[in-house]
Amino acid sequence: MGRVVIDVMPKPEILDPQGKAVVGALPRLGFTGFTGVRQGKRFELEVDGEVTDEVLEQARRAAETLLSNPVIEDVVSVRAAEGAATGAVGAGA
Amino acid sequence: MGRVVIDVMPKPEILDPQGKAVVGALPRLGFTGFTGVRQGKRFELEVDGEVTDEVLEQARRAAETLLSNPVIEDVVSVRAAEGAATGAVGAGA
Repeated sequence: MGRVVIDVMPKPEILDPQGKAVVGALPRLGFTGFTGVRQGKRFELEVDGEVTDEVLEQARRAAETLLSNPVIEDVVSVRAAEGAATGAVGAGA
Repeated sequence: MGRVVIDVMPKPEILDPQGKAVVGALPRLGFTGFTGVRQGKRFELEVDGEVTDEVLEQARRAAETLLSNPVIEDVVSVRAAEGAATGAVGAGA
């Protein structure tokens, strides 16, 4: 069973209120030295079988049409997942 | 200027309504072959200077206390970002 990982981030010129909230909270909790935070989304798509070039191409189009808003977000990465583990693994689902 | 990337995903045993919505919408938009989707979060933390082991350790603790809810989410990755680009880069901000 293959898995495709897609990363979507707010465009640099777009205000990111969630990231702003995090960067304000970090020093209050004792975490210093972080000058900026951006919060985006990470998707894990499972496929039966291998992650072929065709699957990646479909995932890329899905990322650009369904998983991101191209006005305010960039799809920064669409790739086959290395290794197992993380939330998309079926074992405990 | 260094950057730390943190990935947070819902635990496998936790229902993920956003992922469920996506997996239901994909075939309606013509994207077939995806059997499951999980949606998580991706953070980019900027630091002045290098991403040292100490910075990564701080980021790891921040990920576990502020950026994720350990009851329902797993921190799946805390790493120094390779290369430039993506939403956290200051150029366009």
